[in-house]
Parts: sequence; structure tokens; C-alpha cells
Amino acid sequence: MSNRFFPVMPSLTTHSLHPENQESPIHFLKKRVIDTPLFYKRNHFPYPLLTHSNYWLPISGSVKKPTIFSLQDIINLPSKTLNVLLECAGNKRHFFEPKTFGEQWEKGAMSQGYWTGVPLRTLLDYSGIEAGAKEVVFEGYDFGTQPELTKMHRYVRSLPLVKALHPDTMIAYEYNEQPIPYKHGYPLRLIVPQWYGMASVKWVKQIIVIDSSFQGPFQTKDYVYYPHKNSNKDSYPVTTMHVNSTIQQPLHMEILRTGIHTIEGIAWTGQGEISKVEISIDNGETWADAKIMKGSKYEWTTWTYEWTVHQQGEYTILSKATDSTERTQPYTAFWNRKGYGYHAMDHITVNIK
Amino acid sequence: MSNRFFPVMPSLTTHSLHPENQESPIHFLKKRVIDTPLFYKRNHFPYPLLTHSNYWLPISGSVKKPTIFSLQDIINLPSKTLNVLLECAGNKRHFFEPKTFGEQWEKGAMSQGYWTGVPLRTLLDYSGIEAGAKEVVFEGYDFGTQPELTKMHRYVRSLPLVKALHPDTMIAYEYNEQPIPYKHGYPLRLIVPQWYGMASVKWVKQIIVIDSSFQGPFQTKDYVYYPHKNSNKDSYPVTTMHVNSTIQQPLHMEILRTGIHTIEGIAWTGQGEISKVEISIDNGETWADAKIMKGSKYEWTTWTYEWTVHQQGEYTILSKATDSTERTQPYTAFWNRKGYGYHAMDHITVNIK
Repeated sequence: MSNRFFPVMPSLTTHSLHPENQESPIHFLKKRVIDTPLFYKRNHFPYPLLTHSNYWLPISGSVKKPTIFSLQDIINLPSKTLNVLLECAGNKRHFFEPKTFGEQWEKGAMSQGYWTGVPLRTLLDYSGIEAGAKEVVFEGYDFGTQPELTKMHRYVRSLPLVKALHPDTMIAYEYNEQPIPYKHGYPLRLIVPQWYGMASVKWVKQIIVIDSSFQGPFQTKDYVYYPHKNSNKDSYPVTTMHVNSTIQQPLHMEILRTGIHTIEGIAWTGQGEISKVEISIDNGETWADAKIMKGSKYEWTTWTYEWTVHQQGEYTILSKATDSTERTQPYTAFWNRKGYGYHAMDHITVNIK
Repeated sequence: MSNRFFPVMPSLTTHSLHPENQESPIHFLKKRVIDTPLFYKRNHFPYPLLTHSNYWLPISGSVKKPTIFSLQDIINLPSKTLNVLLECAGNKRHFFEPKTFGEQWEKGAMSQGYWTGVPLRTLLDYSGIEAGAKEVVFEGYDFGTQPELTKMHRYVRSLPLVKALHPDTMIAYEYNEQPIPYKHGYPLRLIVPQWYGMASVKWVKQIIVIDSSFQGPFQTKDYVYYPHKNSNKDSYPVTTMHVNSTIQQPLHMEILRTGIHTIEGIAWTGQGEISKVEISIDNGETWADAKIMKGSKYEWTTWTYEWTVHQQGEYTILSKATDSTERTQPYTAFWNRKGYGYHAMDHITVNIK
């Protein structure tokens, strides 16, 4: 229905400009690799100003030999390239009931593509790690204030040693075979497959190995699940992505004709791999398996389901993914005060005319 | 908080690609004139392919003398330029409860800017109008099928004679001093101030004066208010815009600090002019007048309200506009099956920390 003279392109959806937060048009992303203009943008602070000509990456702290890498040093090391899905911990926050405060991300605070870089463990092999080391801290160049912070803070996060040393945790310098775009972390971005996106620190300024638990606000105040509205009881940190799925087509509240429709979408998990996607066209009464097309380990899985519908009326369609560790999507999301990790079954309603 | 090296731009929000439906980032439109890249796009069909080199506009039907205008004829006539707000009849459909089918427009299916053209009555003066004439029909070049249509249809709409002859109803050929962008109706677009946007037919192919009531599907099936879910009883056509308002800042579910905040937004109406905008910061218990800054007759009115807040907690903020014909916004929207003309008071919730 389109035509070559007047091409139609989907757009990001703007949630805020200062800092810049825009989500991907997820229903219209049908490729395995998302081009930069459609990659979601999620920032805590204004874009930092780096003096690139003088870029060095220091590793210090509980290391045997503090080490400083130039960009060229890093590029000269053996690299790896992985298609990695990044999903903001606040993805789908909009759908929590009761509503939770913060950016009202719908379903598109996620994107994926090829990241190329050096395994972090390669760099840590140069510096060595002291015996008592517990975590590795990543400091970004971005800093500022927020309503919930009482003073200026840099964006800083840590990883436990076991995740930091995972061979696929990397210091990336390319996205889709180009230098990482500035807004996505140029020149160096930490990429942590399987964890929510807050772990993948942009504009990495320095790496510090510590022998304690890092206590920065983006580790101990934000990116924490608080199951209760008025107390911090039972809280625990946001880490790996939940098993999840999104129906890309048809669209919610779409009007369709009787006949055959392809229901299609994506599924993903931060643990193991997607083993099954089930579809219900009667709001959960009955289920059928979708056909799943696996990609590489850290990509989303695409799926389709051919739906033949003869009867006019309204249908509520659900998608439910299950992963190889037996995790599955609940009907109702696990509510938490800051609205992280929404992963209830996806649902849309269509009207057949 | 932005910086000149990494400019931040808002984006359209994609609702569908075929046909193209994308809404304006209304919360970030702070100018009186919207540039083309941020103007909302609303289509029923694929973009038509016109052979521009051979463009003629015929006026026929119940006229004294059928007349054909070339583009140059039209441009040579005395023109007028008006800043006109266009709002899709489905703007804010997303907020109806119960939900209604169709594009789930949020608050940005509206934009405005300078339209330059010839009053339609100038053209009708050339052709003359027969005594029994009742309506003027506008046929667009765009055509296709839809789930609710049983065959191909062109996009065609009519206006009652009194509205067609209003001196500000025009056949426009420029937007913001440039030829109308192709996707917005090049070379000629009907502009009908004060009516919902469906009246402002794009890519005008021909004009036909008729002595009956036009019965096309976009006049008698779509763009009709159906107050009942399962019957067509009490239905009536969508015409002038309701009195309405939108809070642009702060954003819904935003976290703010105690202190002074400017609540700001826009208000508009299809009848008379905006006479008052009231703000409640306690979910409607008490109201105070916002400061309003009127523009020209067919523009939206901008308004601001300085809010000093000392007490932490959650606040539901409402905006309520009233126009010079005493119409005001209801607390709850007038529900109708196809989801047109939403104009309940706008409301957002913020959390003061």
C-alpha cells in the first residue's frame, strides 16, 4: 500500500527532551538489527561533552596493576561481535496498574543490533584482580541532578565479579560496524547481555574494582524493585531481564476483516533462551503454540501465528513466552513502586468486521 | 540542560504506516507555528500519485457555469493567510473508557500553522451557484479500501453551503509560506477552520455543488457520533471542534521537587474563542484561573499557571477550558462508539518529592 515516491518511515516516540528519552516504534521493527535512528534513547542526564582527542580508559582499585588503555589499545585487542538486545528496566511501565511514576514507556524501550568490542575480562587480565575483589564499578561521563537526588551525581553502576568476567560482557566501540553513535555511548560503552539496559553504562570514563558492595544511587535507590507502596521492605536489585513478549501486529484496537491474519511479534529473556510462545485468541481460555524463529543467543526471538477468523466480534489476543529455565509470563504484572521489569503476558483487542 | 553539540529533537509518534498515521509530540510543541516535520499525519488511504504537470481544479454540479481552474489561475487570485489549527476528530481517542476501536491517538493528533490560499467563495463566485444548491462536495485524489468498506472509495466529504461560503474556508496552496508538503495535500487542500480535520480534504481533485445531502461513507458512516454501543440511534455528524485543552508540562506521572512549577498548555475551540482556562491541583476540588495568551482567531490559546507546592505527595492536576459561547469541558468524556471528539478536562498526576 506504500509507494516508492512517498516513503513512509516510523519514528521514535518522545517521552522527554531534557534529558532525552525516546522509545523505538516497536510494532514496526521487523528486522533483526535496528538502525541507529530507530534505537531507543534513554538518558538520566544531559549528554556529556567529551574531549575525544584525549580519551583514556583507566582501570584501578583492587587490581594488581592499575592500567590505562588508549582507544587504540582497545581496538588492537581481539574483538568479538554480538547481536545484543538492550531493554530498559522501565520498558512497559505505562501498563502497570496502579500507575507508577517515571517515564511512561510503552512497549518500545528496547532495541538490538551488533555490538563489537573487547571482552571486559581481557582488559581485567591486564590489570589483574586482587583476591578480595567483589564488584567492578563503571563510571560514565554523564552527570547531573534529578528530583530524587540531593546533589550532583555521575551515572555509575557496578557488576558482581562473576558477571563482569563473563566472556560476553564487553567494552564495545562499534554498533552495527560503525563507531558507537554519540548518543548511545561513544566512544566506549559497557554491554552487559541479559541484564536490563541500566547495566550497560554509556560513555565509560573509568573502571574501578572494589572489595565491597557499591552504594551509588543508581544501584541502591533507583533500579531496585520495591514491592510495597509505602515501605522499602522486601526490596531487591534489578538485574537480569524477565521472560517477556510483545505482539507487534495486529495493533491494539485495530479493526480487521474476517479471514486469515498473521499475528506476529517478539519474545526474549535474560536467562536461558525462549523455548515456547503461546497465543490465545480468547483472552486466555485456550492456547496454541506460535511458530518461533530463533536468532542468536542475545537477540529477541520472532514468532508468528496464523489466525483464521470467521466470526465477527471483539477478540482479546494474548501472547505468553516461556524460557528454557521454565520461567513464564504471568497474567498480571508483578507490581513494584518504581515500575521496573514489567513482563505480564502481552494483550491486544481487535474488532473483526 | 541540552547542549549545542548534541541537539535534541522531538519526534512524531507512529500509529500505523499503511496508511501513514503519526501524531505530533504535542507536549514539546511550544511555538505558534508547527514545522512540517512535526505536523501530524492522518491518512485513510495510501498516498495518491498525481501527475502535477497537468493539474486542473474543476467546479461542477449545481452551478451556473461549470468552471475549471489551473493552479496558476488560483495563485493569481487575491489570497489570504491564516494560522489555522487542525485537529483530527479522533484526537485523544486513546483516553475513552470503555476503549473504542480505531487509531489510538493520544493528545497529538493536532497541529497548526499558516495556510495561504483563495477563499472558496471566490472560486464559487466564478461558477455561480444554482438556487437549489445545498452542499459543496470535495473529492480528494486519495482512494482505497478499509475493513469497514465493501469496495474501493475515494476520500470525499461535503460542507453545507453556509460553511463553504464562509470567507475563511479556503482552497490553500501554501503551508508556512511554502507549497503545501505532498503528504499534507499538495497542490491544493481545502482548509475548514473550526471543524475537525476530516473536513479539510487533501489533494483536492474536484468540487461539485449538489442540491441534496451527500451520502458518502466518510460523511454518513465514519465521522458520525454514535452514542450507543449496539445501535445507530441518536447518531449525528462530526462537525465543529469541541472546546478542549491539553496540559503540555509537567508530564503525566512526572516526579518533581517542592517549589515553583509552571503548569502550561494549550486550549482551543471550534466556536467563538477561549474565554477562560481553569486549573485544579486537587483533582477538581478547587479551581484557579490560568493566565491565557490569545493568538489569532483559529490558533490555539496558550496558558500558564504558576504553582507553588511545599507539600510532598501526589497531585492530580486538571485543566478546564471555557469558550465565549459558554461551552466548557466535562469531567468525563462524552462516549461514542467510534471515539470522536474527546474533550474531557485534561488531567495528569505528578509526584512531589
